[in-house]
Amino acid sequence: MIEKRLEPAEEEKECESSNSKPPGCTIFLGYTSNLISSGVRETIRYLVQHKMVDVIVTTAGGVEEDFIKCLAPTFLGEFNLQGKELRQRGINRIGNLLVPNDNYCMFEDWLMPILDQMVQEQKTEGTQWTPSKMIHRLGKEINNPDSVYYWAYRNDIPVFSPALTDGSLGDMIYFHSYKNPGLVLDIVEDIRRMNSNAVFAKRTGMIILGGGLVKHHIANANLMRNGADFAVFVNTGQEFDGSDSGAHPDEAVSWGKIRMDAKPVKVSFLDVYGDASIIFPLLVAETFASRASQLIQEKRD
Amino acid sequence: MIEKRLEPAEEEKECESSNSKPPGCTIFLGYTSNLISSGVRETIRYLVQHKMVDVIVTTAGGVEEDFIKCLAPTFLGEFNLQGKELRQRGINRIGNLLVPNDNYCMFEDWLMPILDQMVQEQKTEGTQWTPSKMIHRLGKEINNPDSVYYWAYRNDIPVFSPALTDGSLGDMIYFHSYKNPGLVLDIVEDIRRMNSNAVFAKRTGMIILGGGLVKHHIANANLMRNGADFAVFVNTGQEFDGSDSGAHPDEAVSWGKIRMDAKPVKVSFLDVYGDASIIFPLLVAETFASRASQLIQEKRD
Amino acid sequence: MIEKRLEPAEEEKECESSNSKPPGCTIFLGYTSNLISSGVRETIRYLVQHKMVDVIVTTAGGVEEDFIKCLAPTFLGEFNLQGKELRQRGINRIGNLLVPNDNYCMFEDWLMPILDQMVQEQKTEGTQWTPSKMIHRLGKEINNPDSVYYWAYRNDIPVFSPALTDGSLGDMIYFHSYKNPGLVLDIVEDIRRMNSNAVFAKRTGMIILGGGLVKHHIANANLMRNGADFAVFVNTGQEFDGSDSGAHPDEAVSWGKIRMDAKPVKVSFLDVYGDASIIFPLLVAETFASRASQLIQEKRD
Amino acid sequence: MIEKRLEPAEEEKECESSNSKPPGCTIFLGYTSNLISSGVRETIRYLVQHKMVDVIVTTAGGVEEDFIKCLAPTFLGEFNLQGKELRQRGINRIGNLLVPNDNYCMFEDWLMPILDQMVQEQKTEGTQWTPSKMIHRLGKEINNPDSVYYWAYRNDIPVFSPALTDGSLGDMIYFHSYKNPGLVLDIVEDIRRMNSNAVFAKRTGMIILGGGLVKHHIANANLMRNGADFAVFVNTGQEFDGSDSGAHPDEAVSWGKIRMDAKPVKVSFLDVYGDASIIFPLLVAETFASRASQLIQEKRD
Repeated sequence: MIEKRLEPAEEEKECESSNSKPPGCTIFLGYTSNLISSGVRETIRYLVQHKMVDVIVTTAGGVEEDFIKCLAPTFLGEFNLQGKELRQRGINRIGNLLVPNDNYCMFEDWLMPILDQMVQEQKTEGTQWTPSKMIHRLGKEINNPDSVYYWAYRNDIPVFSPALTDGSLGDMIYFHSYKNPGLVLDIVEDIRRMNSNAVFAKRTGMIILGGGLVKHHIANANLMRNGADFAVFVNTGQEFDGSDSGAHPDEAVSWGKIRMDAKPVKVSFLDVYGDASIIFPLLVAETFASRASQLIQEKRD
Repeated sequence: MIEKRLEPAEEEKECESSNSKPPGCTIFLGYTSNLISSGVRETIRYLVQHKMVDVIVTTAGGVEEDFIKCLAPTFLGEFNLQGKELRQRGINRIGNLLVPNDNYCMFEDWLMPILDQMVQEQKTEGTQWTPSKMIHRLGKEINNPDSVYYWAYRNDIPVFSPALTDGSLGDMIYFHSYKNPGLVLDIVEDIRRMNSNAVFAKRTGMIILGGGLVKHHIANANLMRNGADFAVFVNTGQEFDGSDSGAHPDEAVSWGKIRMDAKPVKVSFLDVYGDASIIFPLLVAETFASRASQLIQEKRD
Repeated sequence: MIEKRLEPAEEEKECESSNSKPPGCTIFLGYTSNLISSGVRETIRYLVQHKMVDVIVTTAGGVEEDFIKCLAPTFLGEFNLQGKELRQRGINRIGNLLVPNDNYCMFEDWLMPILDQMVQEQKTEGTQWTPSKMIHRLGKEINNPDSVYYWAYRNDIPVFSPALTDGSLGDMIYFHSYKNPGLVLDIVEDIRRMNSNAVFAKRTGMIILGGGLVKHHIANANLMRNGADFAVFVNTGQEFDGSDSGAHPDEAVSWGKIRMDAKPVKVSFLDVYGDASIIFPLLVAETFASRASQLIQEKRD
Repeated sequence: MIEKRLEPAEEEKECESSNSKPPGCTIFLGYTSNLISSGVRETIRYLVQHKMVDVIVTTAGGVEEDFIKCLAPTFLGEFNLQGKELRQRGINRIGNLLVPNDNYCMFEDWLMPILDQMVQEQKTEGTQWTPSKMIHRLGKEINNPDSVYYWAYRNDIPVFSPALTDGSLGDMIYFHSYKNPGLVLDIVEDIRRMNSNAVFAKRTGMIILGGGLVKHHIANANLMRNGADFAVFVNTGQEFDGSDSGAHPDEAVSWGKIRMDAKPVKVSFLDVYGDASIIFPLLVAETFASRASQLIQEKRD
């Protein structure tokens, strides 16, 4: 089983290392926000820091929680803490993790001046902002090697998040729009960039942790090229409800999101009580990390 | 149990019928795309046609599959049909449902001229398009009483879908952008409208079918008003993975997405083998539909 | 879907009504104890009272909770009541249901004299007790038309529960064995009876609510006849863990537990928050109950 | 999280090693049959071989599949192999594992003479057979160090399986009963032994992999002593259906199956696609195995 699970990833690496620019295999990495809230963030950052993936798709929470963690820590709590008590004490619960309201205040203090600058640049320089451009900018501004998006900025890895307003970032943009209106975030330019990454790739691999938007968005882009060559799905979705989240890879084959002769792997997801994915760190350790010197060397050449 | 499950919905209706404009209780309805693909679409259309809900949030698929069903039918298949064979025959599988490629071609033929007009209006009239404005326009254009969004258009019910490019609509917009570039879809204006619907409501109720974006987006907007008064969650998400999708309502209380004294109901989701939600039609039958004459009368006054 | 789900059951009834003694189709009904704890007990009792099923398999809890409900009521609580507090107040929780310790004391008072008699009959009359014989006797002793097993006794429907000692009945038998030792409950004679019911049937149908022992035991007996003709599985088990509980019917086909040409139906289970199965009452209403006059007539002839 | 998960197990070991005979903490290990079918069997065998657990509870499949693996191998297949084709080729599927019919024939050849002897001993020596005595005998007969039950026999660790007739063993006993009738397997004596193991222990710990009978049986025995001191549950059961399988440890606290001040851990189960539990080998590696020299030394003293 371990052998089988590792196969696609190994091949992805092989094809990636075959030629460096552009890679022989463009790897799309998608993940939901709970993984950034949890300790899996460090595994993701490792991959991005060492340029082991090429395109990222995540949700609004998957973006903002990374920055917030640079400003103040998230705490380990328990699943069954009472919502009412937490609310009265100004603590927000994400599974068994706790994030104080203060963290979001610090985030606001950090973000508001950047939003001012963005509006300014839009007006004076004609910058046409998109979610991916905004994330790139925030990665530059955070300037912190703990951040996934700092490294995405540094390594020029695009991060797509079409519903970027769906979270604390959206709250801030909403508040800010009353003080300093006019910011436009366009999702049309981003879908062009996103799809182009799939269309012009030699081969593609998808590593998707979780369901919903991140899973569908990567698979849909790969439909534009008649399917990805490799696919690793790790999630807790169930097939019977007919959602894309829990669909087996074979459903994606019918759509042309995965090539008919591709090697897909569906691993049922385990993020044990939310604070640690057991599978993904193991998977990365046995694939990307075990061939790190080779992969990193390649990038330098 | 039935009694308990119905309570919130009944109260929602009661508060809604208390005064008509604005409603005593603004109802946010969210659902994932599989529900539009399935027969639940008709139950949703019933609610929208009779103006029983006030704000809708769905995914790109939840928008486009409704229009596509107006152009050509979806077929009942089986979960275990082989993806490779389906692909070769030009048939796409959604759970146990089948959608021929032809349907998407018809959708393209219908959509492209509308996209041309939208670009035209943007350039000549200065229309600033957002996902909700685009869905409103498409609802007008489809002009078909089978469509959920036709009725949303007719009844002026806003439909938010910030990641509207994540599906066939995005594919079409992508193709179209090469022939006739320039369309901008702004998600900042939509987050303002979305949040305002929560902030300026007297009371709010959330009815959310499925997880991911639709669940988080409605709950996050209600955070802006210190929580919804009523909440009904129907989904298959699991708590242990720490995602918002499977989180119990009490987690939302910690965030202020649900009021501390509100009546939340978490109903574990059943969309039996994808083609029919058992719960939602029953729930609507026993709540909205059983007091339909009262609710519809109210709207006419 | 409803049509499809009902097909097997309808056919079961048809074949059953084709000739009365023995039935054209022997129906095995299996269910886990939570269904007796919940209100589904009444639906099961309806089927047994009207002799609409032929063989029952359940767990120890599925037996004893029926009798205990004849002695004192079960109460509706909530899932998140604290175990420690409940323990201090002498209340046991089953999902969102509450059973006071007193109920088990009443059960003890009722059961102990019967155990005495059973030991006596074993010694003096040479009765060789088995779990099914004991359940038959208890059904006679309870003499209460609310009880599933009263009607099983009256209608001579065998009830198999090989691990009958795994619950309160086992506790009582354990206590009793110190006061009045010697009782023997033999499971070999029961496996002969159980399997014979499958082997000598003309056709068989399986209706199995839940997983574990009840699912495996019925399916295994049907392996003895090269497979059941009809199968309805309703459970929450997941396939990926490789357990029989969540296995799809097609796995049973490989074993010869379901005939290759049989009509199996796997309905993902929903017992919403434990106190009511939505599916099973609906399923019985639309199948057995809707043809009740015909089915009951048949039995009288 | 890892720390937290390991705590109880570490304490169990500490208390176990505190005094050797009887142990300071009696460890009950329960597991469902899919774990013996999968590679977890080797991890279980390790624990039993080195006498790191004291009492075992499993299902019929959990017993017989261990012996069958000593006679012929189980093969790795796939979840989506067609049942009909497998049936025609005489191959039985357990999740993604394949067991040829021949294996069960070899099992029959091995078992039948032993059943003859058991009947003989019952008649001539008055042996009163119970499931645990039969498993002990089979462990002796298999005489193979790959077998879990060989080591249970060698180390005198009782194995309880009250529904031992629910599987291939039951099939064989059924067939055999026509050729050589009379065997009695009594479950009353076993419930006495099982409960006594809990009642007379200084402290107890429960490690339960999977749900259904194995989970309930161990917890119920610990109710007899007002609760276990430590509990580790690893399963895929869901709480909402009200079954014991998916119940959180706090439900067991209400029953007195876990002490009010005990340290329970509920780990959501992952047996990835059936052929390997990721969690249990990791858990054993980091607890029992890492202190193996200490634990094994203790036993020798």
